[in-house]
Amino acid sequence: MDTAELTDLGQQLRVDSVRASAAAESGHPTSSMSAADLMAVLLAHHLRYDFDRPAHPGNDRFVLSKGHASPLLYAAYKAAGAIDDDELLTFRTLGSRLEGHPTPRRLPWVETATGSLGQGLPVGIGIALAGKRLEHSDARVWVLCGDSELAEGSVWEAAEHAGHERLDNLVVIVDVNRLGQRGPTRHGHDLDAYARRFQGFDWHTVEVDGHDVDAVDRAYGEALSTRGQPTAILARTLKGKGVAAVQDREGLHGKPLPDADEAIAELGGSRDLRVRVQEPPAARMLHSVPTGRPEPPRWERGEEVATRDAYGKALAALGTARADVVALDGEVSDSTRAEYFAKDHPERFFECYIAEQQLVAAAVGMASRGFVPYASTFAAFLTRAYDFVRMASISGAGINLVGSHAGVAIGQDGPSQMGLEDLAMFRAVYGSTVLYPCDAHQTARLVAAMAGLDGVRYLRTSRGAAPVLYGPDEEFPIGGSKVLRSSDADRLTVVAAGITVHEALRAADALAAEGIAVRVVDLYSVKPVDRAVLRRAAEETGALLTVEDHHEEGGLGDAVLDAFTDGRPVPRLVRLAVRTMPGSASPQEQLHAAGIDAESIAVSARLLVENAVVA
Amino acid sequence: MDTAELTDLGQQLRVDSVRASAAAESGHPTSSMSAADLMAVLLAHHLRYDFDRPAHPGNDRFVLSKGHASPLLYAAYKAAGAIDDDELLTFRTLGSRLEGHPTPRRLPWVETATGSLGQGLPVGIGIALAGKRLEHSDARVWVLCGDSELAEGSVWEAAEHAGHERLDNLVVIVDVNRLGQRGPTRHGHDLDAYARRFQGFDWHTVEVDGHDVDAVDRAYGEALSTRGQPTAILARTLKGKGVAAVQDREGLHGKPLPDADEAIAELGGSRDLRVRVQEPPAARMLHSVPTGRPEPPRWERGEEVATRDAYGKALAALGTARADVVALDGEVSDSTRAEYFAKDHPERFFECYIAEQQLVAAAVGMASRGFVPYASTFAAFLTRAYDFVRMASISGAGINLVGSHAGVAIGQDGPSQMGLEDLAMFRAVYGSTVLYPCDAHQTARLVAAMAGLDGVRYLRTSRGAAPVLYGPDEEFPIGGSKVLRSSDADRLTVVAAGITVHEALRAADALAAEGIAVRVVDLYSVKPVDRAVLRRAAEETGALLTVEDHHEEGGLGDAVLDAFTDGRPVPRLVRLAVRTMPGSASPQEQLHAAGIDAESIAVSARLLVENAVVA
Repeated sequence: MDTAELTDLGQQLRVDSVRASAAAESGHPTSSMSAADLMAVLLAHHLRYDFDRPAHPGNDRFVLSKGHASPLLYAAYKAAGAIDDDELLTFRTLGSRLEGHPTPRRLPWVETATGSLGQGLPVGIGIALAGKRLEHSDARVWVLCGDSELAEGSVWEAAEHAGHERLDNLVVIVDVNRLGQRGPTRHGHDLDAYARRFQGFDWHTVEVDGHDVDAVDRAYGEALSTRGQPTAILARTLKGKGVAAVQDREGLHGKPLPDADEAIAELGGSRDLRVRVQEPPAARMLHSVPTGRPEPPRWERGEEVATRDAYGKALAALGTARADVVALDGEVSDSTRAEYFAKDHPERFFECYIAEQQLVAAAVGMASRGFVPYASTFAAFLTRAYDFVRMASISGAGINLVGSHAGVAIGQDGPSQMGLEDLAMFRAVYGSTVLYPCDAHQTARLVAAMAGLDGVRYLRTSRGAAPVLYGPDEEFPIGGSKVLRSSDADRLTVVAAGITVHEALRAADALAAEGIAVRVVDLYSVKPVDRAVLRRAAEETGALLTVEDHHEEGGLGDAVLDAFTDGRPVPRLVRLAVRTMPGSASPQEQLHAAGIDAESIAVSARLLVENAVVA
Repeated sequence: MDTAELTDLGQQLRVDSVRASAAAESGHPTSSMSAADLMAVLLAHHLRYDFDRPAHPGNDRFVLSKGHASPLLYAAYKAAGAIDDDELLTFRTLGSRLEGHPTPRRLPWVETATGSLGQGLPVGIGIALAGKRLEHSDARVWVLCGDSELAEGSVWEAAEHAGHERLDNLVVIVDVNRLGQRGPTRHGHDLDAYARRFQGFDWHTVEVDGHDVDAVDRAYGEALSTRGQPTAILARTLKGKGVAAVQDREGLHGKPLPDADEAIAELGGSRDLRVRVQEPPAARMLHSVPTGRPEPPRWERGEEVATRDAYGKALAALGTARADVVALDGEVSDSTRAEYFAKDHPERFFECYIAEQQLVAAAVGMASRGFVPYASTFAAFLTRAYDFVRMASISGAGINLVGSHAGVAIGQDGPSQMGLEDLAMFRAVYGSTVLYPCDAHQTARLVAAMAGLDGVRYLRTSRGAAPVLYGPDEEFPIGGSKVLRSSDADRLTVVAAGITVHEALRAADALAAEGIAVRVVDLYSVKPVDRAVLRRAAEETGALLTVEDHHEEGGLGDAVLDAFTDGRPVPRLVRLAVRTMPGSASPQEQLHAAGIDAESIAVSARLLVENAVVA
């Protein structure tokens, strides 16, 4: 396309953004209009993409980090022939694929859900890393960011990562339109300010007038010819460009234009330009081929093994069996034991340093490319990435997150290192699976099973060693549980997981010696829970005592409720959990102080079987 | 002190770090040894601090961002005479004030809990902002960071904020010891790489040999004389400096020295140098004085008002009544309605832009200075700051966090903007309070009541307008609830909060028309919950039906369980919550699709009163 045609295409994208938002009576047309020329040039001259074959391995990947500019994206889809005008006008209505913020659950051309700002670039880096190091692909990754979102630290965490990894297959386009939601951004139109920041992180930068289509064209060309560095294109634009009533004006974020018809007329009226987007180059489809025979690790029953250690060994073995498994580390692989995988499969191991948002985002990006990522750090530090986990669930991303050093049982390091909110955090995520093994074989089985699940999967591991309870061939279905002690005389059921399973068994033995039979359930699958076993336990023993190394809200104790919220009779319940703020102490002192050790379980159990209220 | 004395003091700090870690048989001596000279010079020559009067307003503030180097901090306390040698050797034992990572809950000289890396600087910025803009203090804020933690985006989010705010009362000292936990850092000893990054964010930088005490002394002097910019001192150091067996070696992070006695001998043996830390200058104690008469906002009963709007107006009124109230915004104050406060009290309004980690960290820092911060953004985006909230609870920080746009009820914007995990997230935080008002007067009362609570307090507000239910003089105690419909004939109790209260009332009316009397409880205090009212409802009506605009895990439905986990009989329960992934749709369509509108409540209630299981 020549200059006039490109300019015309930009105007069409504006008109269609205005039209879609007007039809929806909501949306972000002004944020779309600023980036319309940037999008027009990309679509017409640089993007290589087959909209009929979104899975084509040679396709470029495009991420709209400023997800609220979805009208622009959908207008571009229409220009590319991927959707028709009728669908464009379903924007933001019930059942439409064209949501307020784009999601890959609904649209095959969307790589990742956006709408929480500052996430497009980190996920794009995961995609670019997969392209460069795993797929050996020539595809480029284009990320269109807003300027406001550059205030998010995650953007600079990502910039550091991309600079260090020399991701020259990555181009970030920043739509510097000067205006955020509530007013001017920090740096306004000072492109140099942004350039200095990106350059500080070893990026190549290009500053450009984002409404000069030829200059934008040259900027993209410069980005593509830059080797050894990612490129940031800093484009000076005007919010609401092209319509005097809104152009470069405050107070108009996220609102349809006051007079759509007049705006469309001012933009030169509706057009129906169709863009022939470049075909992707021929590329090899990625196939997952086994690279070796699976040899799951084995231990002796009774051997003292930390579940984090079992995770590391199981993951290394899984990596041998499956070529699509990759591991990501937050600079603690010696603690999480992901180091075993790193040693066996260095080409599929990604060091993200102490940057948990990038850690999870890279996993999301790799999952979008068909890989099966396992990202691990301390359970406590996964809280750093909660917004990324939330967005991953909206994407429907299949990621495995593994949090080590769960609970007070870590001992001396104190509360900052203790995962005490992680079960609550992951249970509340849509479509998630939450697993909490108590022994090595259980861990190894669950690590392998996770790979095949949908959505966000979380595995919680422990720092300290505990005896191996199960044999190497025991099965642990997702949504299942194990009844470890059971008799017809059981007077209550202790429900435990992870470290507290061992405490529960000790308590059960002590109580048995007193003539009190209690059932013990190992609820390794915290979400989904084993409703059948819990309901049977309730009917047969009348009362449930849950015990967990986690704060009392949102964890195991709350999870058992899932079996009883359909109106059926509910058993009597006692919930033992961490209710105090721990300090430093030995692991066993911590369990005792928190009231979740064998002795505390036995005390509560005695009260419960006497029908007393447990204070 | 002269060069020899400073050097000697540095060695003492090393020796005491080694001794404390040896006594504890755990800890991070090598990470302490690298920064010992930096700490010695600071303590002896630059820090102004009265350890007998930690609340002295003229005191400098010191934040150990690399909290794992706690042995160094405690060794410095000993050198300053704040603790004795016996206490030093209680490091990391049960009941000791000297935890693995320092916390202000236990030690009066600690400004904020650290141990999750990348948080000291953001919190330090909150302290520095309070000093500059609220206290008009000459105190300096010193933050000692590790090099590994500079991989956290939160550090650069903070750097951007401090540069933009020109915080020349802030000095960051980076202990560039080249080694992280599992191996070398990204940039090793490349001080220039760090300098470029800080300079990119408009900081002054000084590069220095961190073991040359005179050079360090000069660097601190240069930092103190720099105006209009914060300063980053980039100090080249060696991990484990001074002991050949560990110096600059990998694989020794977080471990006591292999031979402590030999190490101490190599360091020149134990010393008992005492430092006379400079007295702080005379300074005015900050007093909270009312600046005007409280005039809480009032509305007409039945008037349609969004609770977010009530929040903004109540906060503005509170700011008039109390001079210690400050407000912080994540660049969405037009949506959260914090803009009302900004208009009335611009000098106490802090724009943090789209940077939720900095938003919460600044609140923590201001709270540590005695202010009462209210930080607000969309509920969904507070997930971005979960690790900061977690650490705030470890600090015991009194912060108010307000999340707007809760739930599917926001409508068209779609799931990325919907707070659907926030109740779970905040309930799981130690010592937190979780509030979810349904009308304007309730919101206004709770906004004022929050200010007087301990710990992390969370208020959830809604986007859409709803009728005012309560009068302006109604009281809403924390931990209370309101029974909105009640009779002796009640056959079940609907427990709702926020938007679902209005749906529950509609359902109750519909059911009453069919002859089914149901009780309706407005559970505005989600944590703590009103155990008495819930238990009475259970006894009198036999069944509870909870309904919430939140995912089903960890929210209102789980919260009611708090009233029944002491072994008493539990009522039959049905939990209505968001179990699907919403798309775009109108608010009422969303409530219906999620099964939490009046019609859905009525359907479940009919089944429940017939003793049927609710699918």
